[in-house]
Amino acid sequence: MTQSLENFEVLISEVGPRDGLQSITRTMPTDAKRRWIDALAAAGLREIEVGSFVPPKLLPQMADIGEVVAHALTIPNLHVAALAPNLRGARAAFEAGVHKLTLPVSVTEAHSLANVRKTHMQMIDEVRSVVALRNERFPNVSIEAGLSVAFGCTIAGSVSDDETIRMSVAMAECGVDEVGLSDTSGYAQPAQVRRLFKRLHAELGAKAGGAHFHNTRGQGLANVVAALDVGVSTFDASQGGIGGCPYAPGASGNIVTEDLVYLLEAMGVRTGVDIDKLLVARAILAAALPGEPIYGHVPDAGLPKGFTYADGHAPSVNPSAARTAGVA
Amino acid sequence: MTQSLENFEVLISEVGPRDGLQSITRTMPTDAKRRWIDALAAAGLREIEVGSFVPPKLLPQMADIGEVVAHALTIPNLHVAALAPNLRGARAAFEAGVHKLTLPVSVTEAHSLANVRKTHMQMIDEVRSVVALRNERFPNVSIEAGLSVAFGCTIAGSVSDDETIRMSVAMAECGVDEVGLSDTSGYAQPAQVRRLFKRLHAELGAKAGGAHFHNTRGQGLANVVAALDVGVSTFDASQGGIGGCPYAPGASGNIVTEDLVYLLEAMGVRTGVDIDKLLVARAILAAALPGEPIYGHVPDAGLPKGFTYADGHAPSVNPSAARTAGVA
Repeated sequence: MTQSLENFEVLISEVGPRDGLQSITRTMPTDAKRRWIDALAAAGLREIEVGSFVPPKLLPQMADIGEVVAHALTIPNLHVAALAPNLRGARAAFEAGVHKLTLPVSVTEAHSLANVRKTHMQMIDEVRSVVALRNERFPNVSIEAGLSVAFGCTIAGSVSDDETIRMSVAMAECGVDEVGLSDTSGYAQPAQVRRLFKRLHAELGAKAGGAHFHNTRGQGLANVVAALDVGVSTFDASQGGIGGCPYAPGASGNIVTEDLVYLLEAMGVRTGVDIDKLLVARAILAAALPGEPIYGHVPDAGLPKGFTYADGHAPSVNPSAARTAGVA
Repeated sequence: MTQSLENFEVLISEVGPRDGLQSITRTMPTDAKRRWIDALAAAGLREIEVGSFVPPKLLPQMADIGEVVAHALTIPNLHVAALAPNLRGARAAFEAGVHKLTLPVSVTEAHSLANVRKTHMQMIDEVRSVVALRNERFPNVSIEAGLSVAFGCTIAGSVSDDETIRMSVAMAECGVDEVGLSDTSGYAQPAQVRRLFKRLHAELGAKAGGAHFHNTRGQGLANVVAALDVGVSTFDASQGGIGGCPYAPGASGNIVTEDLVYLLEAMGVRTGVDIDKLLVARAILAAALPGEPIYGHVPDAGLPKGFTYADGHAPSVNPSAARTAGVA
């Protein structure tokens, strides 16, 4: 372990309402989205990516993004994030009042063409235009470039560290505020995670962003441990592990928020999130999408006997009560 | 990362035929056990815990242990391990010709009483007797004390590092060859894993043994990464994640051999195990216990495009062919 985790604090960015819901064919009703986001925030999640600004024809699941953002903005102390793949979506997101915009930028040209139908050069131009618009009219919105297939690509195969770092630097030069690395296809492994985030930090300094890991091959939390080692302090996760990338066949499953919070708190890393309250949110998700597979070990197993959060407090309800409350 | 993983080699000790099969109510037919063990060895697993020497009345699944050991001993270069909870079982195991004997020793008195109906003092006496018998008549057999609930206990709750280390030292003083730490109830977290194995090594030197992790709360592979950091080089795992501890309610699921091999090889750690051949063994397991839940992400997702093993060689068959071969 290269650093002490004592008093280390991590921001978990919940991406279920965006990455999760856009990967599911069915559309969650707007009212359920509102209640789910309320419950996620009530569990202590301070940043939620609430949806995507994309044409409703392409992703009808996100057609109500305007309403959802408007609702999320009424929740006190919540950092409201959204994704947009291009200038048009970014403008709509800015106008809707999001606090943070995520731009998905593929490290490989093949994935870029499949995901947003743009070459690297075209995407770099697009990001520049988004940053220019932000600078001119929406200076308070932060912009993250989320680098897709940063650890490997289902289309192009292996991705070298150099390729990922080169695109990271290009994004920083475009003027984004941070560059995060996404394991879109579940290719990342812990040694690579350490190498890449160490180098990202060396090259980008304060612009080095967080990690978006998938659990495609069961390695999601192992990669989190590796990333913590090199100082990564922001992790995307999805309640119930819903989501994945529709253009990366075989890649499914974000890391599960419930399991991530448990892992971090058990290690002594503060997240500010209450696991029992997360299960309340999980019940809303399960009820709104009946039959949809949702994942997670901690919701099934419950908290260990004698468990305390990183700050020393005990769970709010009896762990076994949470386990048998029918929200697993 | 506290050490380089280059040229690091790990021994995976497959415990499915013991820990897995004794946790399942049904009994796998002896012939299927033989074929399964053959296939596991053919996949490159060099150590297999093939069963337990326990009264058939208690665990009828293990009634054929003598035959199974006899068969396993015919497999070239396989280290044949078995578990025994007491002197009587140990004697039978020695006489059957096992290469290695694992003695389960609980760190908490409560778990000891529940699991083997012995106090700590009684168990220490038992281990001394087993070691004496080995020294006198079976000097070539190695003995491992496998410390149950070393990271936490479903009965006693939290377990302090001191408790685990105290029992480890007691076992070393009894004359066992190595002391391994088991997360019987799925309580372990990475920071604790690093602390405990570092201290185990400091106290026991060459007698510090391997890690037996469960995936109860999804943390199994995260704990493997932490253990690798502090030099642990032997990991128990179970094909399909079958198994758990029948006396630790709520604790289920060994770490999955298939996912562990993938994790390690992807990180550049040599295991000697072939993932595609593991899937052949998995098919035998699945066919012999139809309807029994078996786990694992890599069998579902397949290997990543461009994957190579730690020594640089490519998978033996096309990854997507393995995925669609119906053995997932």
